[in-house]
Amino acid sequence: MPLLVMKFGGTSVADLGKIRAAAGHVKREVDAGNQCAVVVSAMAGHTNQLVDWTQEAGALHDAREYDAVVSSGEQVTAGLLAITLQGMDVPARSWQGWQIPIRTNEAHGIARIAKIQSEDMKAGLSREEVAVVAGFQGIGPDDRITTLGRGGSDTTAVALAAALGADRCDIYTDVDGIYTADPRLVPRAHRLDKISYEEMLEMASLGAKVLQTRSVELAMRHSVRLQVRSAFEPPDACSAAHNGPWDGPGTLVCDEEEIVEQSVVSGIAYAKDEAKVTLLKVADKPGVAAGVFGPLAEANINVDMIVQNVSDDGRYTDLTFTVQDSDLDRAMAVLEKAKKKINYMEARGSTDIAKVSVIGVGMRSHAGVAAQMFGALAEKGINIEAISTSEIKISILIDAAYTELAVRTLHSLYGLDGK
Amino acid sequence: MPLLVMKFGGTSVADLGKIRAAAGHVKREVDAGNQCAVVVSAMAGHTNQLVDWTQEAGALHDAREYDAVVSSGEQVTAGLLAITLQGMDVPARSWQGWQIPIRTNEAHGIARIAKIQSEDMKAGLSREEVAVVAGFQGIGPDDRITTLGRGGSDTTAVALAAALGADRCDIYTDVDGIYTADPRLVPRAHRLDKISYEEMLEMASLGAKVLQTRSVELAMRHSVRLQVRSAFEPPDACSAAHNGPWDGPGTLVCDEEEIVEQSVVSGIAYAKDEAKVTLLKVADKPGVAAGVFGPLAEANINVDMIVQNVSDDGRYTDLTFTVQDSDLDRAMAVLEKAKKKINYMEARGSTDIAKVSVIGVGMRSHAGVAAQMFGALAEKGINIEAISTSEIKISILIDAAYTELAVRTLHSLYGLDGK
Repeated sequence: MPLLVMKFGGTSVADLGKIRAAAGHVKREVDAGNQCAVVVSAMAGHTNQLVDWTQEAGALHDAREYDAVVSSGEQVTAGLLAITLQGMDVPARSWQGWQIPIRTNEAHGIARIAKIQSEDMKAGLSREEVAVVAGFQGIGPDDRITTLGRGGSDTTAVALAAALGADRCDIYTDVDGIYTADPRLVPRAHRLDKISYEEMLEMASLGAKVLQTRSVELAMRHSVRLQVRSAFEPPDACSAAHNGPWDGPGTLVCDEEEIVEQSVVSGIAYAKDEAKVTLLKVADKPGVAAGVFGPLAEANINVDMIVQNVSDDGRYTDLTFTVQDSDLDRAMAVLEKAKKKINYMEARGSTDIAKVSVIGVGMRSHAGVAAQMFGALAEKGINIEAISTSEIKISILIDAAYTELAVRTLHSLYGLDGK
Repeated sequence: MPLLVMKFGGTSVADLGKIRAAAGHVKREVDAGNQCAVVVSAMAGHTNQLVDWTQEAGALHDAREYDAVVSSGEQVTAGLLAITLQGMDVPARSWQGWQIPIRTNEAHGIARIAKIQSEDMKAGLSREEVAVVAGFQGIGPDDRITTLGRGGSDTTAVALAAALGADRCDIYTDVDGIYTADPRLVPRAHRLDKISYEEMLEMASLGAKVLQTRSVELAMRHSVRLQVRSAFEPPDACSAAHNGPWDGPGTLVCDEEEIVEQSVVSGIAYAKDEAKVTLLKVADKPGVAAGVFGPLAEANINVDMIVQNVSDDGRYTDLTFTVQDSDLDRAMAVLEKAKKKINYMEARGSTDIAKVSVIGVGMRSHAGVAAQMFGALAEKGINIEAISTSEIKISILIDAAYTELAVRTLHSLYGLDGK
């Protein structure tokens, strides 16, 4: 009997009506002969309310107490969905993280799943009882509730799919799949039928907010086939899950090998929440990078792109890198404090930049993708301030004002416009 | 080191401001050198919201899922109070029912506590860490969350006090103690310094809503000294707990022996939520009571007072009894259905009645209390429709319109007016 993990995010269970709609999707899969484990988030807004309360109770609160409070949202949704399913004559029961149990490490608030003991749940599933699982939570070595951080329910779903050896993990969300670009920016963007884990990982970490990066990594490591689909289509209109060739709704995130017709470029992503820092006239000698990035790392500031120009005379260089918008002020303060030690002339910070990325596993076997990109952007008069590449991705830093133009230009360039 | 259990009800933790006030009470007791376990209810209104959701999800819901949903309210308050205490430099941690664990029977929604394994909590308390306990909840033999029914947090507090061998259990609520009568009805009612368990039990079950009956029974069985006091007095204004002779705030519920100057009558209680049923011309023969009350019991209708008149000719009798207001329609239907079998002429139901009760352990050694009562009421022209007595209580049924007059008359009669 095929086993499915289904996951419904906060907007998909925001009220009792939406919970009923989610239950409709579950019933469809059960009726089609699937065993189902369903992971739920808290009702939209509920978690924020709980987080606000913990803040109000004490700004520097104990993460263990934060977890006890905040995890209650998923507990509520799981119970309500189980009740709703029962009302549709679908046998169901709720499972809290500690009941399964989902064992995590001790990092309260940002815990990582260590092990899922799924024997009891499997026994329930084989009695054809739907398992409704509170997402986002587990139990730590101290036998107290832990939470997995923002978007943790995706991680719960994928980890559970891996532990149960599920045939697929369906992520129900408020969009109907993964697009070649943000449809709000690029009207001619279209939904991908399939995307590889590697590409999805780049998409996720580069600003396409549909899936949490960690959950995609986990899916890749355990070869969990992920389907991203809309929770808001009427349940009856969707075909049930099956294990044959893919013709389902939404986008399937899977192994590269499963994608027969692979385009060179699968999608264009962008991020506007980065800031650029440039250090002018840094002494060009061994150890200078450590001198700059050491203090930033200590201050817990993540650095993304780094560009170092070779200097003319070999004595000075200019160093450019990007950090999160929200970290810029702290980064500038850290650099000011370390100015003597690093030995630079001036530090400049700017938030008026955007990162635009071209992603596709096809790049591995196609030369000239970057050259095409730079040519097309030059033609539009868009200046490239920094470049960083990986095997399947080229990212550039540009003036934020040109974001739309750049994304649309590249979307057309690589033949992604409305297939 | 003295050990206190403190309990805060829903109105005493209704928002973050009230939670801070509750934390102030806890800090006072900690500063005075007490080990403290604090039991909390859900924030006022929160439980009702959760109950509404379960109703909306499915009217005939699984009680196990109901428990999973509804218990989350106490989990939230416990975490928030722990955070607030930590912010006041009072070491604290939250405990959920399943973490302690508080083991209950399998009756989800109305579970009874079977055993509290308090070893881990005791270890925390002896490190001077306040234990903040989510009330109202436990864990059943199926390892799923159970709840204890309405007012269950009182029961949690008393059971915990018994398990920990606490020196006292303080119930913080929105009134400042137990009164000789409802102050809204009797302006000259006054707060009792002490009341015996037996009296409190009669008060609780007869309509004084301060303490849940079950928790008083439990306190009596385990000799837990209960203090009922206001959560809304400023913490600094109250003296800290001590084990000497009683001069604390609020009302102490304790063993009869601890009350030196015992009055004959301690209080007057009333209940307006009962209905009277009279069966006219019932055949007066063995088995008739079983014929009437058997079907009512099967329909889960609780019968309170029963009065059967001896008939003149020994062939017929009139039978009067009371049920809850809310059960009257069902009771009448049950009786109608069993009319042939019971063999009565007519059934009459009325909700315009009130039960008024005089309570006091002193009655045991004082004759004539009932006679005095009946005389005083007759003088005011109040007709008594039924009488039921126990060792320490006399209850009468009267026309509801005379409730205030009767309660005030009796309050004066037994010398309870404004000492």
